[in-house]
Amino acid sequence: MSVTKRTVGILMFDGVEVLDFAGPFEVFSRARLVPGTDSRRSDESAPFSVCLISADGGPVSATGNLRVMVDFSLSTAPHLDIFIVPGGFGTRPLLDDAALVAAVAARARQAEIAASVCTGALLLAKGGLLEGRKATTHWGALDLLASLGSIDVLPDRRYVEDGVLTSAGVAAGIDLSLAIVERLCGRAVADDTARYMDYPRS
Amino acid sequence: MSVTKRTVGILMFDGVEVLDFAGPFEVFSRARLVPGTDSRRSDESAPFSVCLISADGGPVSATGNLRVMVDFSLSTAPHLDIFIVPGGFGTRPLLDDAALVAAVAARARQAEIAASVCTGALLLAKGGLLEGRKATTHWGALDLLASLGSIDVLPDRRYVEDGVLTSAGVAAGIDLSLAIVERLCGRAVADDTARYMDYPRS
Repeated sequence: MSVTKRTVGILMFDGVEVLDFAGPFEVFSRARLVPGTDSRRSDESAPFSVCLISADGGPVSATGNLRVMVDFSLSTAPHLDIFIVPGGFGTRPLLDDAALVAAVAARARQAEIAASVCTGALLLAKGGLLEGRKATTHWGALDLLASLGSIDVLPDRRYVEDGVLTSAGVAAGIDLSLAIVERLCGRAVADDTARYMDYPRS
Repeated sequence: MSVTKRTVGILMFDGVEVLDFAGPFEVFSRARLVPGTDSRRSDESAPFSVCLISADGGPVSATGNLRVMVDFSLSTAPHLDIFIVPGGFGTRPLLDDAALVAAVAARARQAEIAASVCTGALLLAKGGLLEGRKATTHWGALDLLASLGSIDVLPDRRYVEDGVLTSAGVAAGIDLSLAIVERLCGRAVADDTARYMDYPRS
């Protein structure tokens, strides 16, 4: 079985929330078109290839001081079919970094699917990606998100699809990622991935 | 507020499943005795200090080629109050490494609480930790676990507490970690941590 893989890029930065990036990483890196456990022993039926991207390509320190190596910088990364922007307290200083916000927005616009997890929505909003759209974020940042543009902020939603996808806090990024898998690969593949992960889809 | 922190050590190895270690890392590193979001901006009210441990202290490559730096080797790590053994296909070659199995078993016996996520139970079983106990693991490895000793293997359980704690697959490690937080810090702290993570406790 030979599969053309879509490239998934996940943005990384100091202070990124661990589960915000690790949840989507797990879903996209462990999805397989062939169900069961044995298919996970190789990448043969994997529909996605996942890479981590930081501003300068250097390693990052996530919440709790989890130190992670990344694969590319925002300028060296290949074309991304799917671009995931996680959140965490590390998003706050980035909102004032105009060059970073512009580079993230450019990657989001070029991707087939752009999505945020948790307070990653703040970065997309700052880059204009959520203007005039429905969106959500972590329950603690709903007001802040609303202040960043003309955005219809929806509370109490696991994730929102309105051109750009945005999820609620932290673990909701798993549901968002499974929804993307379902859109691109069908319900059976998404459900099998959730079952492999022992994750109860909401 | 000054808090005496319990030390949580998470075992890392090549081929460790990403969410197996990242779920517990998220729970223990983001738990706070003071509820809400602001308390997560510092470690002041954090009841746990989390470290990553590999056999030799070198970095590991988790599933999907996620490259993670670790803090200690099994011999240099400090005393662990809580020792978490994640799973993943990377556990299989370790089962034949007698020195590694013995070192993991020693750490598990010295800890106040020893726990496995997913197929991490295989390593604990091989080290004799699950002998005569009830235990669980990923649904794809129930028979293999039962073959590793006189173990009462329970399917369809999110996690099992019988001296040693063992969880079902991957995401069930989050439930197991929240259960440990609840045992040590009370229900309110565990529920607040889950709410911060937007994780629906099962």
